[in-house]
Amino acid sequence: MIMHSNYGKVVRFSRIFKRGRTFIVAMDHGLESGVVPGLEKMRDAVEKVLVEGVDAVMVSFGAAKHVIDVAAGRASLIITIPEDEKFVLRALKMGADAVKTTYFGQIPLAYEKLYSFSKIARACEEYGLPYLIELVPVDSSGKVIYDVSKVITAARIGAEIGGDFVKIPYTGVVESFKLVVESCFKPVVIMGGPKAEDEYEVLKWVEGCVKAGGAGVAFGRNVWQHKDPSGMARAIGKIIHMGLTAQEALKEIKSS
Amino acid sequence: MIMHSNYGKVVRFSRIFKRGRTFIVAMDHGLESGVVPGLEKMRDAVEKVLVEGVDAVMVSFGAAKHVIDVAAGRASLIITIPEDEKFVLRALKMGADAVKTTYFGQIPLAYEKLYSFSKIARACEEYGLPYLIELVPVDSSGKVIYDVSKVITAARIGAEIGGDFVKIPYTGVVESFKLVVESCFKPVVIMGGPKAEDEYEVLKWVEGCVKAGGAGVAFGRNVWQHKDPSGMARAIGKIIHMGLTAQEALKEIKSS
Amino acid sequence: MIMHSNYGKVVRFSRIFKRGRTFIVAMDHGLESGVVPGLEKMRDAVEKVLVEGVDAVMVSFGAAKHVIDVAAGRASLIITIPEDEKFVLRALKMGADAVKTTYFGQIPLAYEKLYSFSKIARACEEYGLPYLIELVPVDSSGKVIYDVSKVITAARIGAEIGGDFVKIPYTGVVESFKLVVESCFKPVVIMGGPKAEDEYEVLKWVEGCVKAGGAGVAFGRNVWQHKDPSGMARAIGKIIHMGLTAQEALKEIKSS
Amino acid sequence: MIMHSNYGKVVRFSRIFKRGRTFIVAMDHGLESGVVPGLEKMRDAVEKVLVEGVDAVMVSFGAAKHVIDVAAGRASLIITIPEDEKFVLRALKMGADAVKTTYFGQIPLAYEKLYSFSKIARACEEYGLPYLIELVPVDSSGKVIYDVSKVITAARIGAEIGGDFVKIPYTGVVESFKLVVESCFKPVVIMGGPKAEDEYEVLKWVEGCVKAGGAGVAFGRNVWQHKDPSGMARAIGKIIHMGLTAQEALKEIKSS
Amino acid sequence: MIMHSNYGKVVRFSRIFKRGRTFIVAMDHGLESGVVPGLEKMRDAVEKVLVEGVDAVMVSFGAAKHVIDVAAGRASLIITIPEDEKFVLRALKMGADAVKTTYFGQIPLAYEKLYSFSKIARACEEYGLPYLIELVPVDSSGKVIYDVSKVITAARIGAEIGGDFVKIPYTGVVESFKLVVESCFKPVVIMGGPKAEDEYEVLKWVEGCVKAGGAGVAFGRNVWQHKDPSGMARAIGKIIHMGLTAQEALKEIKSS
Repeated sequence: MIMHSNYGKVVRFSRIFKRGRTFIVAMDHGLESGVVPGLEKMRDAVEKVLVEGVDAVMVSFGAAKHVIDVAAGRASLIITIPEDEKFVLRALKMGADAVKTTYFGQIPLAYEKLYSFSKIARACEEYGLPYLIELVPVDSSGKVIYDVSKVITAARIGAEIGGDFVKIPYTGVVESFKLVVESCFKPVVIMGGPKAEDEYEVLKWVEGCVKAGGAGVAFGRNVWQHKDPSGMARAIGKIIHMGLTAQEALKEIKSS
Repeated sequence: MIMHSNYGKVVRFSRIFKRGRTFIVAMDHGLESGVVPGLEKMRDAVEKVLVEGVDAVMVSFGAAKHVIDVAAGRASLIITIPEDEKFVLRALKMGADAVKTTYFGQIPLAYEKLYSFSKIARACEEYGLPYLIELVPVDSSGKVIYDVSKVITAARIGAEIGGDFVKIPYTGVVESFKLVVESCFKPVVIMGGPKAEDEYEVLKWVEGCVKAGGAGVAFGRNVWQHKDPSGMARAIGKIIHMGLTAQEALKEIKSS
Repeated sequence: MIMHSNYGKVVRFSRIFKRGRTFIVAMDHGLESGVVPGLEKMRDAVEKVLVEGVDAVMVSFGAAKHVIDVAAGRASLIITIPEDEKFVLRALKMGADAVKTTYFGQIPLAYEKLYSFSKIARACEEYGLPYLIELVPVDSSGKVIYDVSKVITAARIGAEIGGDFVKIPYTGVVESFKLVVESCFKPVVIMGGPKAEDEYEVLKWVEGCVKAGGAGVAFGRNVWQHKDPSGMARAIGKIIHMGLTAQEALKEIKSS
Repeated sequence: MIMHSNYGKVVRFSRIFKRGRTFIVAMDHGLESGVVPGLEKMRDAVEKVLVEGVDAVMVSFGAAKHVIDVAAGRASLIITIPEDEKFVLRALKMGADAVKTTYFGQIPLAYEKLYSFSKIARACEEYGLPYLIELVPVDSSGKVIYDVSKVITAARIGAEIGGDFVKIPYTGVVESFKLVVESCFKPVVIMGGPKAEDEYEVLKWVEGCVKAGGAGVAFGRNVWQHKDPSGMARAIGKIIHMGLTAQEALKEIKSS
Repeated sequence: MIMHSNYGKVVRFSRIFKRGRTFIVAMDHGLESGVVPGLEKMRDAVEKVLVEGVDAVMVSFGAAKHVIDVAAGRASLIITIPEDEKFVLRALKMGADAVKTTYFGQIPLAYEKLYSFSKIARACEEYGLPYLIELVPVDSSGKVIYDVSKVITAARIGAEIGGDFVKIPYTGVVESFKLVVESCFKPVVIMGGPKAEDEYEVLKWVEGCVKAGGAGVAFGRNVWQHKDPSGMARAIGKIIHMGLTAQEALKEIKSS
């Protein structure tokens, strides 16, 4: 069980997590990339993925304003904010259940990054709003590092900073991901990365993550760029919340 | 549909209201009366009433801390606060979906009361937290006035102050209560008053309220002082959310 | 011309005043009286009076939220606030073009009143929001005093405090009202008082007010309790803005 | 319809937009270029373009102070501010109906730009003041890029950041501009760029923009550097607000 | 006895210090290094070292939240914070008995460092929370300097800034360390540095430190990376608080 000695976090976590598991759909790509295929029309895109089993949508501040009545009452809003703690109160006022910061860079973190994420963690503690800290190790060419020791380090630093849950890459293997989960004292969700060729592979990631004790996923393109976004969302949701295997979940998806 | 030009209120209202209707269980009696039969053990009492159809529990600040993990993820918390707008941010931090103030007194309101409730409405606007304003007209001996013109006045003043929904007495008759609903431009919920002798009578109030266009009820003793609190809550919830008649809802309650 | 060395006031005054004249419809009675005949349904009531010639509607904070999209783009909102300067920024955020305080009491003012209205004037200066200060002299039984020396005193005190325009009773006679206008260095608008028996009498007040150099009126019941609110509003508007006599304006009103 | 869950934005948008369309005259060139032909005398220049159909003038902070009484009551002020959120409250106090930031640079945006515009969007949300975010993609030599995919990206990023309306280049073709409009979930206005040789070409841009679903234009030099600024403004206004074709609108302009 | 004319510091110091001596276990390595052997599971790691004689655990903000109920009532929490005085109030709210900043760099300090640590000292004075200032001189290659004159300078600067106790390297010799203690007007605790090969050597440091008048130690890896963390902690605690020699303390440790 996830315990917080912070009332607001207990309440808000209870909306994002069901029995310790969560399925977040990441839809905040527009901030950095503009229009991404699958997200052309945000309200429609949100509508499609809001199936049973999806607990939250992760969006930018601008998109949050645009989709708020679509999501309200059906899923939590997680708002992606800049590295500035003043956005925490703004997100709280708007009804978000968590804020997220994005980091692709070197692990361990430079002092300035530790500092700015620490300020957000502090504000989140003050306001009772959970903090999802994304820490993705990349190499000098900007490629994500899936190496287990790097991922372990990233996850743990996220927790030490005061993140309430951590978003990191999936190491690809249940056994190694177990080490990530065990040495991070906060719930861990995995990122999806670029759209995979094979939907079965994606579902295996999800199955592996939860088998290893991970809390769930924050997937984007692998959900809404799939030819059947609702089916894909349903499939992932059933692995996370109902314990289906990747194989069993496949039948949720429309064969094309 | 309930519309707010305030993002946080849109989000939080969507958790208290389902298709414009709400069933709130009032459990904030301890502040004024200490231990009230039925509320001896708050966590058990909350557990009992948290059946399908109950949208929110209304509790004191202290009780909120005590029952937060019982209610979290199952129903909204509405926190009863003093006439001081500084409690609004505190309630927001704690994860409440609304705050409520209590008023039993003369209607119309004295200036000081208008002023202090207005300050709470202002803070609620600032923070995106819905304000449930309870305005109950009483006579010089402290007895609740159910007279329709007094109730109309009370409800409307609550809306003019800036309350987002209003809690007032039920006038007892569908036709007269329709006048209350029509002249109050915010959703109206009815209070329960002292425990009724007859559960059927209570259910008829609920049926009358929603028939007249009321948004629902905020009942206390008539739920948790009933010999079958869960059954009574289920019955009321089905009238409010599923359109059952009082007669039909009776079978939800265990016959003793 | 009305000059302010305060940019925001210049801009907002330009929306309330046309060539130095204004017609405000007062609709803030609900705060003190609940449902007043003619204001049962606020959106409809606002819709009816928003005819050519009406410059602003004066409403409570709660009603402002309710009618905002009806009035937006068609007339200014003047929000009636409690005696607390913190409501000034709130009103500004909501898009009001002025705030108003209500005062029925002894003239000259007791120090506490001078002080609280002064604080609102200070905040209005800070935020560039015009302040309509209503100062109505009443006798010990609460009856409005129309005596010219009292009204002169009230109007001048309103300007001295820092009100940007002043709402006071009409003295009933052009000559005496000229004295009010001349000794008050800010624009003066007259209140309507209780509904008059005779619409012609009301129109004569308006004619007298503008003849004396008054800026216009802030009328309520004599507009929306009239059997033809739109016609009555048109008639008053034409006296104020187009210089019609009361007699000429009468034909705007539907004969019953 | 343009919907905001923010009262102040509803009110202020209603002054800039008429039935979803707007015509803004950009006059903020002095900040970067000093005296630009056509803007030598700001008050005269504003006077000339304030014809029927013009909804707003966009000026620097300094010019706003200078022309405020010319524009007041006739058109909205949109103030061009530095990348500093503290100017938002200042603009609000001065009576602006929106603030604008200027950006000519690479698209997508570097993090520092995303961050500083996000802070302005946050402040605008707080204060109820609409934010017009201009994002103009330029190549390494500083030339504006009209390529549709770049413009789509720019427009969408503006909306994701939290801009309330977005100013971008016109792609030149109705079909391609439709893609911009459809993938940006906020209203889009086009910039004018350098003065065109041919007034008919300019009017065709306007016609194309609104045909594609665009909200209107924010034009400068092509209005006030025209030999008949008032005529040109009238022509553009009629295309935007009355649905004239470029051809039909031509006759508003004095032939020289 | 350590005297403060600051009530909160008197009370909190009395929990960290016993008769002027203290044994702090440093466990804040995760922030910079992620998972460090011995700290894989923070709650277990804290549990193991919380033996008789340990007065405080020093952890990150995130770890503090995680281990708070393990440590509560058994040892003080010292929270390692960024160089930002706003974390002082946060740490106070969370129940810490001190805050600590980390500094490895040149001694004397550059002005910016003096300034930022001074701000923390000021906040600690304000809030009554002791400030443990760590100042570790390192050479250009980043290696710790154990030279006595550098250590004396570091310790004294820590006290001059307003630190309530200072963490510096051990100079290795009782006589030289006496000079450090004598010229620093605040209590001095020594850091452990990398894990020593020989536990006896570590215990000799402790013995030397207290012999020289030092207040105690803030050791990490030499405690929880030892094969018998509880035994090692007991041994160190007995040297500090019961005056055992290193030799005598050795028998507290399980021979492997």
